[in-house]
Amino acid sequence: MTGRRGEKKSDRRVFASPHSDAPLITLLTDFGTTDYFVAALKGVLLLSSPAARIVDISHSIPAQDVAAAAFTLLASYKSFPPGTIHVVVVDPGVGSPRRAIIVEAGEQIFIGPDNGSFSYIFERETAFQAFQLSDKELAPPASSTFHGRDLFAPVAALVANGTEPGELGSLISDPVRLPLLEPAHLSNGNVKARILHIDHFGNCITNLTRDTLTPQMIEAGARLTLNGKTIKSFRRFFAEEGECERLFAVWGSAGFLELAARNRSAAKILNARSGQSVLLKTGK
Amino acid sequence: MTGRRGEKKSDRRVFASPHSDAPLITLLTDFGTTDYFVAALKGVLLLSSPAARIVDISHSIPAQDVAAAAFTLLASYKSFPPGTIHVVVVDPGVGSPRRAIIVEAGEQIFIGPDNGSFSYIFERETAFQAFQLSDKELAPPASSTFHGRDLFAPVAALVANGTEPGELGSLISDPVRLPLLEPAHLSNGNVKARILHIDHFGNCITNLTRDTLTPQMIEAGARLTLNGKTIKSFRRFFAEEGECERLFAVWGSAGFLELAARNRSAAKILNARSGQSVLLKTGK
Amino acid sequence: MTGRRGEKKSDRRVFASPHSDAPLITLLTDFGTTDYFVAALKGVLLLSSPAARIVDISHSIPAQDVAAAAFTLLASYKSFPPGTIHVVVVDPGVGSPRRAIIVEAGEQIFIGPDNGSFSYIFERETAFQAFQLSDKELAPPASSTFHGRDLFAPVAALVANGTEPGELGSLISDPVRLPLLEPAHLSNGNVKARILHIDHFGNCITNLTRDTLTPQMIEAGARLTLNGKTIKSFRRFFAEEGECERLFAVWGSAGFLELAARNRSAAKILNARSGQSVLLKTGK
Repeated sequence: MTGRRGEKKSDRRVFASPHSDAPLITLLTDFGTTDYFVAALKGVLLLSSPAARIVDISHSIPAQDVAAAAFTLLASYKSFPPGTIHVVVVDPGVGSPRRAIIVEAGEQIFIGPDNGSFSYIFERETAFQAFQLSDKELAPPASSTFHGRDLFAPVAALVANGTEPGELGSLISDPVRLPLLEPAHLSNGNVKARILHIDHFGNCITNLTRDTLTPQMIEAGARLTLNGKTIKSFRRFFAEEGECERLFAVWGSAGFLELAARNRSAAKILNARSGQSVLLKTGK
Repeated sequence: MTGRRGEKKSDRRVFASPHSDAPLITLLTDFGTTDYFVAALKGVLLLSSPAARIVDISHSIPAQDVAAAAFTLLASYKSFPPGTIHVVVVDPGVGSPRRAIIVEAGEQIFIGPDNGSFSYIFERETAFQAFQLSDKELAPPASSTFHGRDLFAPVAALVANGTEPGELGSLISDPVRLPLLEPAHLSNGNVKARILHIDHFGNCITNLTRDTLTPQMIEAGARLTLNGKTIKSFRRFFAEEGECERLFAVWGSAGFLELAARNRSAAKILNARSGQSVLLKTGK
Repeated sequence: MTGRRGEKKSDRRVFASPHSDAPLITLLTDFGTTDYFVAALKGVLLLSSPAARIVDISHSIPAQDVAAAAFTLLASYKSFPPGTIHVVVVDPGVGSPRRAIIVEAGEQIFIGPDNGSFSYIFERETAFQAFQLSDKELAPPASSTFHGRDLFAPVAALVANGTEPGELGSLISDPVRLPLLEPAHLSNGNVKARILHIDHFGNCITNLTRDTLTPQMIEAGARLTLNGKTIKSFRRFFAEEGECERLFAVWGSAGFLELAARNRSAAKILNARSGQSVLLKTGK
């Protein structure tokens, strides 16, 4: 471990934030914004790291929906500068023996319960390192319900102030993972994709990327089916003029194919749910 | 253009923020706060302008409701210091050939699609200058769906770091405008006003100001009609004691007459919608 | 007053923030986040106190629900560092002759209408000092509807910039208070508690603390009744395994006993409302 920690230290010098006296910390939770939960986290962060810049990714993840948190993190982390610390607390198992982890990946830091929230980061940043937090040492004994405030925020403040992730726990090799992002290729040449997430506008974000669905396949008549409905219109952008299809597919800003409807909710039209399968039929 | 740009440079020295090493950037969108969209914008801003102070005006503008964005901006921009940069992205036409603009007005900067969002700023700050962004140069080719992150945020960061608006595009004289704020004076002495916006409490904000509706007119029995209901009670403030009218009119904090109901939603009682006409009957 | 002000000045030196050039200001309101209200407050704060760090506690307090604001403030203020300035504006009486106050308590500052919002702070920080703001001097004459922007934010900025609370008004001894936090002990040994607040997850937060409900009482068979339902299961944390009771009681993160249901809304199951009585039956 000592040698490894030494390596990490030099790594961090390389990706130190250009504004490194003001650490950047993001928050992604299912706490909602009606209660005191988010404020308590921020108070604790600013108590220990007064110069921290805090950015809310979202606090409106559906309650305990780890897959929604994982997608939202995947879609946003690349927009943040190296050295950013992401605190992700969507935690159905709070107080139970589930692990708490800190992850170094893609020149950023990720902190939260080990429940799959970081799955897609692991898949994209394969050189990640995950450490199990020794929460016995860190959490005050009375706190069994609010690890966001009492464990994860203090850990984030420690890291913001310069502590190495490797000093806060021991390396693990088996963090919890959700199903792979990669869609399944069927023997008949079709692809079984799925809906990763449904956004605020009702767009259904699939796990199809430009690697799986090429322009050649689209030209050759590729189409998508879901709940008995077929989508065969592909657009370059949302407001594109053209044939009057209600439903269409478009490459979304997170790099995935989205099922959309102009000025309407595609999810409502399709009666679609997050996690549901979408069949991509290729060829004729 | 060169001469003009020279002028602007000296203008900017005059209205430089007292805290000019930490640019102030506001965000006003219809992105909602459940998805990664707002966070992606903020990440991009902080990547290029690490010292920026970012303030959310709102991300809950009804989807693609440009009029609501225009009102919300009108009602808040004067509260911000000179030099503030406002990024306004309520963009039904994203990806289509609609223009993207940057505006200097009232010692502040406004950035967003050219769809009417800045109409009321143009009306209040008549010495404004609007420049069409040359988005071909600025947007990465793949991004046709998320100009907030891929065009407007990078432009805001450039301006925050000192680039002149005039360096980012060419002056235009015909930015898109919504109907005028000014109500219509009818030949019989009445005034045809309209509802600019319905707020969170259900107050209906009209486009009547103290210039159109004077204390003398109120004393002489002015009254308002909408959907068959008449409002003839005028109050100084919301909690004022007095006759027990359910509905009343009051000068709101944005400087406009509002139709309100004590501890209730006036919009629900009146079945009112944004944009609807309100008739102001003057005299007897 | 002069002597007192002298004392306060030295007090403040003791609890000066470690980051005292960047004042920390929190906001707690019922303004919602769909309108311009919160942004206007922030603009005014940053105009006068450009280095201020602003944290939203919540803007989703139910409209004019002073008790919800009081609870939310109680549950979060201790997470913030000494010197924090809390602006709390849930103000059914705006524009009426209700007082506006500034309070020093627990090494923090609290600013808002005198309507009970600070009740629980007074109860926990008994050495508090409350001053009535002389709003005649501070509010511009036209502003009778938006004291958040036109009175409380400017006062917060003054304090952020070093003005002593005692310079802004005169000491009062009778600020408005809500019913006490302390539950009522009945002659038969039972305790009449109440629901202080219902949170985002539907957990019902009672006013029972570990001082009133001891481990011995729980072991001896203590149980809670509300709306004809009895809760006799006590858990250490939300995800604890064990007998399959739908409803259970658990010590919450604010230090109070909460009525909860695993992965469901206890409030819905119990048909519970904020302020409702809960009977704690002790002994057999």
